Amino acid sequence: MPNVIVKTGNKILEINAQQGQNLLELLRKADIDISTPCNGNGTCGKCKVRILSGHLPNPSQNEIKVLGFNAIESGYRLSCCYAVRSDVEILLESDSLQAQIVTEGRQRSFELDPVVTKENIVLEKPSLSSQISDFERVLGSCSMLEVNTPSLQLIRNIPELIRQKDYNISLIKTGTRLLGVEAGDTTESLYGVAVDIGTTTIAAYLIDLTDGERLCVYSGLNPQKKFGADVISRIKHTIDSETGLEELNNLIINEINSCIGAMCEEANISRSDIYAITLVGNTTMTHFLLKVPAKNIAAAPFIPAVTSMVKINAKELGVDINPYGLAFVLPAVSAYIGADTVGAVLSTGMYEQEDISLLIDIGTNGEIVLGNREVLYACSSAAGPAFEGANIRNGIGSIKGAINSISLKSGVSYTTIGGAEPVGICGTGIVDGIAQLLEMGIVDETGRLDDEWEPATPEQASLAKNITVVDNMNAFLICGDIAITQKDIRELQNAKGAIAAGINVLVKQSGINFSDIKNVYLAGGFGTYINVDSALKIGLIPFQLRGKIQPVGNAAGQGAIEGLLSVKRLSDAEIISKKIKYIELSSSKDFNDFYMNCMMFE
Amino acid sequence: MPNVIVKTGNKILEINAQQGQNLLELLRKADIDISTPCNGNGTCGKCKVRILSGHLPNPSQNEIKVLGFNAIESGYRLSCCYAVRSDVEILLESDSLQAQIVTEGRQRSFELDPVVTKENIVLEKPSLSSQISDFERVLGSCSMLEVNTPSLQLIRNIPELIRQKDYNISLIKTGTRLLGVEAGDTTESLYGVAVDIGTTTIAAYLIDLTDGERLCVYSGLNPQKKFGADVISRIKHTIDSETGLEELNNLIINEINSCIGAMCEEANISRSDIYAITLVGNTTMTHFLLKVPAKNIAAAPFIPAVTSMVKINAKELGVDINPYGLAFVLPAVSAYIGADTVGAVLSTGMYEQEDISLLIDIGTNGEIVLGNREVLYACSSAAGPAFEGANIRNGIGSIKGAINSISLKSGVSYTTIGGAEPVGICGTGIVDGIAQLLEMGIVDETGRLDDEWEPATPEQASLAKNITVVDNMNAFLICGDIAITQKDIRELQNAKGAIAAGINVLVKQSGINFSDIKNVYLAGGFGTYINVDSALKIGLIPFQLRGKIQPVGNAAGQGAIEGLLSVKRLSDAEIISKKIKYIELSSSKDFNDFYMNCMMFE
Repeated sequence: MPNVIVKTGNKILEINAQQGQNLLELLRKADIDISTPCNGNGTCGKCKVRILSGHLPNPSQNEIKVLGFNAIESGYRLSCCYAVRSDVEILLESDSLQAQIVTEGRQRSFELDPVVTKENIVLEKPSLSSQISDFERVLGSCSMLEVNTPSLQLIRNIPELIRQKDYNISLIKTGTRLLGVEAGDTTESLYGVAVDIGTTTIAAYLIDLTDGERLCVYSGLNPQKKFGADVISRIKHTIDSETGLEELNNLIINEINSCIGAMCEEANISRSDIYAITLVGNTTMTHFLLKVPAKNIAAAPFIPAVTSMVKINAKELGVDINPYGLAFVLPAVSAYIGADTVGAVLSTGMYEQEDISLLIDIGTNGEIVLGNREVLYACSSAAGPAFEGANIRNGIGSIKGAINSISLKSGVSYTTIGGAEPVGICGTGIVDGIAQLLEMGIVDETGRLDDEWEPATPEQASLAKNITVVDNMNAFLICGDIAITQKDIRELQNAKGAIAAGINVLVKQSGINFSDIKNVYLAGGFGTYINVDSALKIGLIPFQLRGKIQPVGNAAGQGAIEGLLSVKRLSDAEIISKKIKYIELSSSKDFNDFYMNCMMFE
Repeated sequence: MPNVIVKTGNKILEINAQQGQNLLELLRKADIDISTPCNGNGTCGKCKVRILSGHLPNPSQNEIKVLGFNAIESGYRLSCCYAVRSDVEILLESDSLQAQIVTEGRQRSFELDPVVTKENIVLEKPSLSSQISDFERVLGSCSMLEVNTPSLQLIRNIPELIRQKDYNISLIKTGTRLLGVEAGDTTESLYGVAVDIGTTTIAAYLIDLTDGERLCVYSGLNPQKKFGADVISRIKHTIDSETGLEELNNLIINEINSCIGAMCEEANISRSDIYAITLVGNTTMTHFLLKVPAKNIAAAPFIPAVTSMVKINAKELGVDINPYGLAFVLPAVSAYIGADTVGAVLSTGMYEQEDISLLIDIGTNGEIVLGNREVLYACSSAAGPAFEGANIRNGIGSIKGAINSISLKSGVSYTTIGGAEPVGICGTGIVDGIAQLLEMGIVDETGRLDDEWEPATPEQASLAKNITVVDNMNAFLICGDIAITQKDIRELQNAKGAIAAGINVLVKQSGINFSDIKNVYLAGGFGTYINVDSALKIGLIPFQLRGKIQPVGNAAGQGAIEGLLSVKRLSDAEIISKKIKYIELSSSKDFNDFYMNCMMFE
């Protein structure tokens, strides 16, 4: 029986295979959640592996086509096309593993009043005593219709359309404005899409606008990541390359179009049944989406090209839905408080409440909003990517097999995403692990990992042997060779210090007391899965806020959905974007002072 | 010396040429006003002649290119490339002769408030304490600016534009809406174009929007005429051919673009200095312009696709001006009361006056409007093309050499357009001629031409010899073989009967008395040049209106100019289009009764 060694992230697995067994089948049986959109048909290329040693068969024509010549030369093959003939060592890259993306949001109730509506009417037939033109006949059919000049194409289409089903037509409207006309009664086909474009991931939702029902959820990776993991690298690409902005725009538009295609297929509807799309994202992402120059976002004084709501024909944006369909990009506040944050404020409802709330969305940047229906303050704190597992020795994204919780109560125990074999530690796992090390006294309040630590109780005794040296640093082993190092602790101190300092700046500048804050909303994947006690323990969230913290899931995406379903909510987004007072931290002395303090553990 | 026989329309000229003389030069010396846009450079093809007999040289490469192989085979050559070597007989087609198109309108005073304006401003520079986005910075620069989402392209361009001249920019606006932004102070470059699209001719005007000055006038023939002289033939072409509408649209858009090009060259400005274009035309012409199906205009119940004002980006229409430029197609009333009539009502001001006015624009159809600031009634009477010289034995358009006035007071005397040798009789000449024949008693009140007429005075004696028989009909010779026949008189009776009946229907339906009508405005070329006494004599205009008649020139084109220069006038056009009550004559018993009466002479 051939032996297959699978290297993936920081984990090595050994699996026994049947002679000639299909590699994809083998990986699936071993519970490795490999991404296979084409379901093993050799067309999507997502199940690619790199053969590090062992039998390397000649590539099939298909593999050359899907992977490209360079990848073939570097030893990549498709696992769905590979038969195990002998011992083999393979590398599975993390982007082949399915990411865990939070697509659930917390929903407030609201009246259904979608951004696009339909109305079925039967027109009076033309005669010598009713000679009004076709277009005016349609406009006059509905007392609420505005006479604003609509698209020329609509005027061109109307004569044939209204006669197709004997003057029975459906009006497509946004508010009181006529967008389009269809022959016959089509009022039952009315769908919308909401999209949250993250730097790393994309979440999209297909919504039935006639009843508000969510039909499908789609999540995927942002294909722009090949031009850099963070917004600054991608903006740099648009500066360095004349076609850079165009490339980034094409990538996201194509991804949106293919995710719409996938959802339509799943829900068994047509693209042309979709009449509206709402989009949120950080300011850089919405600039790339709109193909608007983002270069002034990257350097002081950090000036975006546009922050107001952009409402255009979806066609103009390149989004392939109904030709009359509209696209709404929610408004942003500044270069680093984007439409995603506005969407999150919208869906939490904090802008309407008398109670003061604090919203925290932690990613590479932590966006923080503080306030209520009277005032809203916001800042963006550059935490760095530690919470996303980057710059951490065994750090990893929220993929299957990532250690996402750690307990040292009775020896080392942990859980992983999907219950799979551990492949690394994700952000919530790091926070948990360091909180536990603090709890045990293995790490002190300055962040020093004590290599001469002595257990205080018999239950703790077994932990001592996990204290070790890795890469010439003190470290604590979690399992196998997955460890938390002294450097990891320093990275976390920087990251949590930045977030905590941001919170403190907002509290100080707004004149609000910690005790006045009634709700703390944790948005996004990190906020959803984080152990709140650990977050308090390490001082990521100030201790005074204990007991007030609740995760709100993908609040940004939920905001986009609400904008689709409620004209009122969409206009609330504009009110929010104007109401939020943005505090620039890069020029704040307060921030620097708080930052130095907040890096400490207590 | 070679002898050149020139046949043109119904006239034959004999000219002596120098050996080897250039034919174009010869024709010009003989005062034949041949159209030569390229000024004899062999590139425009307008000076083409057909060699009927005599020396036919081999064509140059240029002539083959400009005229095409079929024309060359049929004996066409360019007169600017032809040297006269021997006796030759040539045919000059009427479309090579410059048409006399009325481009002058009568102007009322109004406040200058053009549809597009510019404003120069200097923006506050961005800094860490002024981080507002580029687009919002521009919007915020001007308190009157609306936040309506403008074009995506504008948002894309703004970041670079505002930095080009150190935040000194010019805003391009329509009303309070931002259309575009330019770097630096460009407020001095702001031009507009007004176009009147007739079935036969086009008139265009280049206007300086900063002071209202008219810089250029352009007139030309509507190139759509190759698909038929009248609107019905052209609509038929759009029904018969799938690409018909596209073809007609292309022809007019190309003609508009080339006329804009010619005017820009004359005024030494760039196309991109033009920010607005207003257009009028009959309803069929505006449908072709907008590429909107016109087929339902042609048959009862005569339903246009659109009659409201269409305001779109000029780019969307295919009109090549500034990329931010707007196009306004003035509103129409019905299938046969178009934006041209609305423009004419606008420029006469009759819709604002307490006095009741009657507007008559005579072409193939006669559009008639009656009313004042309280009520406006309109109808369109199918006069047929007799007033344009068609269906008349020696009838001809208003080109050079057309007999345009006739007197029989002391023998036969006449004038021609441009004072040239007579080539035929145009509409005003026919009216004059028949009025004089009535005056002399040669034609009686039933329209019969009396071949046994006897002169009543010695002055009239010489006229008797002009009464003759042509084409087996009684006829009256004007000069050479140019005559007015019995059939011509019948054609005129039909035509003038239709107009006069239309006037009578409006008077009856509106309940207005003839004596209440204070002004009669005669619009268009025919109205400008007609002898008012003759028009009254033949009963084209009811006799009760004597003394109230004034020509108003190209009132439709003047309306388009006023719409360009005054937002108020443009919105007045919409008010007019809605106020006019359209009377359909095709279903009117009154019209038939009046028509029978009005065909008589008194």
